This record gives sequence, C-alpha cells and structure tokens, in this order.
Amino acid sequence: MRIVRFQWQGRVDWGILEDDTIFSLLGDLYGDFSRGKQLCRLSDVRLLAPAEPSIMVACGYNYMGEIRKLGMPVPEEPTVFFKPAGTMVHPEGDVVYPPISQNLQHEGELCCVMKREAKNVPAENALDYVLGYTCGNDLGLADLFKKDGRLTRAKGFDTASPLGPCLAMGIDPHNLSIRARINGQTIQDSNTSQMVFGPEKIISHISAFMTLHPGDVVFTGTPEGGHYPVKVGDVMEVEIEGIGLLRNKVVAAH
Amino acid sequence: MRIVRFQWQGRVDWGILEDDTIFSLLGDLYGDFSRGKQLCRLSDVRLLAPAEPSIMVACGYNYMGEIRKLGMPVPEEPTVFFKPAGTMVHPEGDVVYPPISQNLQHEGELCCVMKREAKNVPAENALDYVLGYTCGNDLGLADLFKKDGRLTRAKGFDTASPLGPCLAMGIDPHNLSIRARINGQTIQDSNTSQMVFGPEKIISHISAFMTLHPGDVVFTGTPEGGHYPVKVGDVMEVEIEGIGLLRNKVVAAH
Repeated sequence: MRIVRFQWQGRVDWGILEDDTIFSLLGDLYGDFSRGKQLCRLSDVRLLAPAEPSIMVACGYNYMGEIRKLGMPVPEEPTVFFKPAGTMVHPEGDVVYPPISQNLQHEGELCCVMKREAKNVPAENALDYVLGYTCGNDLGLADLFKKDGRLTRAKGFDTASPLGPCLAMGIDPHNLSIRARINGQTIQDSNTSQMVFGPEKIISHISAFMTLHPGDVVFTGTPEGGHYPVKVGDVMEVEIEGIGLLRNKVVAAH
Repeated sequence: MRIVRFQWQGRVDWGILEDDTIFSLLGDLYGDFSRGKQLCRLSDVRLLAPAEPSIMVACGYNYMGEIRKLGMPVPEEPTVFFKPAGTMVHPEGDVVYPPISQNLQHEGELCCVMKREAKNVPAENALDYVLGYTCGNDLGLADLFKKDGRLTRAKGFDTASPLGPCLAMGIDPHNLSIRARINGQTIQDSNTSQMVFGPEKIISHISAFMTLHPGDVVFTGTPEGGHYPVKVGDVMEVEIEGIGLLRNKVVAAH
C-alpha cells in the first residue's frame, strides 16, 4: 500500500494512493486506518514530503561500494547524525544552492518513517516500528564538511532533505533497487541489499540513545556514486523499487 | 521582565512572573503581549522548560578559560551542533544517566530562545530576534564523543538538555555572572563576557546556513569548569545573573 501527504483544496491531508487515484485515509495514520471514499486524482494535488518529523537522523558510510571507494574500514556500528525537520523539501520542490558553499552534493537514499515511539528497540523487531519507506536525498556541502570537520552545516542547511513521493508500506527494505539520475544521466545504480547496516540495525542503534517518535525520519545512507556534485538548474532524481520517483531541482538563492 | 511556561490546573501556559506571582500573558508570546490578571503563586505550578523549539543548536569551545585549559587555538568561527528538541528537560526534572555511557558530564550555559524567524541575520541586529535568555545544561557523554569522533550520541541522548527556570527579557547577555554547582559545590564561576563569540555572532553564524524559528533554542557554550563528571544522585545547578537557578537531578535508567 502507498500513502501520500498532499495539499488539495486548501487543506493538507494524508491519503491512500491506488494507481492514480487518492482515497481518504480513515482512522489514525500511526495506528489503525482504512481506505475511505475516492477523493481526487494524483494530478489534482500537490504532493508533500510524506513525514511529520520532530527530528531526522541520518546514517553515513553504509553501502559497501561507497566504503570500498573511500578506502575506509567497514564501520563497526552505524555512523549517525542529525538533520533538522525544517530542512525537508517536498517532491518537485526546489533545493536552494547555499551561497556559503561551492560544493553541493547529491546523495540518494532509502528513508524510513517511524510509526511508533521507539526506545531501546532490538534490531529483531525494529521494523515493526516503521510506518513506511520513501526516497530521500541527503544533500551535503562537501567543502564545509572538509572545513568544519563536522556535519552540522554540511548536512543541516535549509533544503538539505528532499523526501517523497509517497510512503510504501508492506515492502521488504532489504532488496530494493535504488537508482539516481542527474539531468537524466544515471549516477547511482545499486540495491539496498548492499547496506552494511540494515534499517533495523540503524533504528535499534539510534533508539539505544534517544527516543524516535511517530513521524520521525531515518536516512539509511547513500550507495556508490553518491557525493555527486550538482549545480543550479540540475534536476535530481532518486528512484527506489516499490516506492517511486523523487525529483527536485537545484535553484539559486535570491 | 521574566516569563515562565508552566503546568497548572491541568493546562500548559505561558505567564509573566513578578516576585512569586504569575500573571496571565495576554497576546502573542512571539509578537506583542501584555500582563493580564493575577493567576497564582509560583509554588502552585510545575515549571516547564521555557521554550517550544523545532530544533536546538549548541555552540562548543566558546569560553576563553575553557579553550586555554584544552590548549586549543581560538576558533575562527562558532563550532555548532544540533540537539533534538526532544532532549529538553524541565526545571527540577530528572536527567537519566544513559546506560550506554560511563562518563556523563555537566555543562552550564546561557541559552537564547528565538522570537522571530532568523535567516541571514547580521550579528549587528541578531539580538532583535531573541525572545529571552535562560539557563541550560548541555549535558554530554565524554566516552562516546571520544569513541564516535562526533557529537550525535554524545550530545543528543534523551534528557541531554535541561532548560529553565524562566525566560529573562531585556537583559544584556554580555556581562552576566554564570555559576554552576554539583551537590552544592561550585564547579563553574565565570561571566558571559568571557565568550569568544557573543550570542549575536552565534545566531548570525547559524542563520547563514539555516532558518531559526520562533521558539528555537541556541546554547552558547560552557565556561571553564564544565565537562564535570556527574553520577546518579547528583544535583546539578546552573545559576545566571538576572535569570535564576536551574536545578536537575541525575537518576538511573530503569
């Protein structure tokens, strides 16, 4: 099942997507819900990032191909950092090239949106706490990461976190093809099976030090070919099997 | 003027504190407001952390005494990192010693709570964007910082951010005595004049890469004597001139 968050007729709502039709979602998104009446077509709405996070937590260095390319040892535990909720960008929304950087980089990723409060959750049942999966772009500023030696500015700048287009529920996150394109050219072509730490291990690791709340987002790392420099005017696409396509354009600050 | 957020008769509200009396706050906390009728005594309410942040941003290595002690060069720009809003602890609230660490450390700090949306704000008028000032404790896990080489777990664990007891408005943040005690013993005794970067420079620096929203919190660094190890049962106090006393106890996880 795919669910979408959207703006339509002046209101913001969640709905159930079947083919190109959006149905109302009856009940509690984070609890039990069912399909209500037919609302509209997908083309009638503006899709919104399918999450209402209090915080987003991202994992770095999590695909074997990228780790080999960087020539670094395989991490013993997930490498995590925060991305403020305010950095989210909607599907088809603009990413503003930050004037403080000359090296904005694309990173396509699988993202988990949380369903239940998670604290001290073992990996074995951590996926029971996930509402659904979506595509994300964990944009970074390589020059500021190098200068600062930390990721605060490099991964926490305004518009650093495009997310969407929908939440896919009931899919297995361990074997999904994940591809990314810049202006139509494929730059990432991998599979989530290449993760060092599966989503369940990342969520378990995070929940050992902090509570994840319903709606919070967990980024699971970018495959080989990420850290791809983009410029104003570029169109970035992240496509994950069973979820869909997230597309965003880079624009200049004004 | 001092304002407080509190729980009283089953509801959560903001009020104006004069001596030991709380008056209702009429109008918009982040806009124009005035003093309404007398509500109750301070001792009638449970004080809450005086902020409603979407994100908290903290500054490290910002007092000359601490920098000299650490033998590090004076930073050229503020060193900032994120603390999730969910890590806030109320005045008199418990700090839970995280089972994943053996080195929980106290750090008393001056904190700013934002009044207006701030993006690309010059230091010259950055304090116009501040609603008020409060005491904070930027608790850290020294062993995990050493192990991880980053601050995510070390500064972002549940209960890492006590805040309170009130917001002081109309005070000059550049010359306030700041003291901290553990179980009554003074461990920090400094003045905010010893900051490398005043609050206006920290806010300007942050606003150059991300938007600060009304209610967001900015921690301004800890004076010499911070990074003080605490244990279960310890009572931590942070007291800042013109604001008041923030007190929290360390308890064991259960």
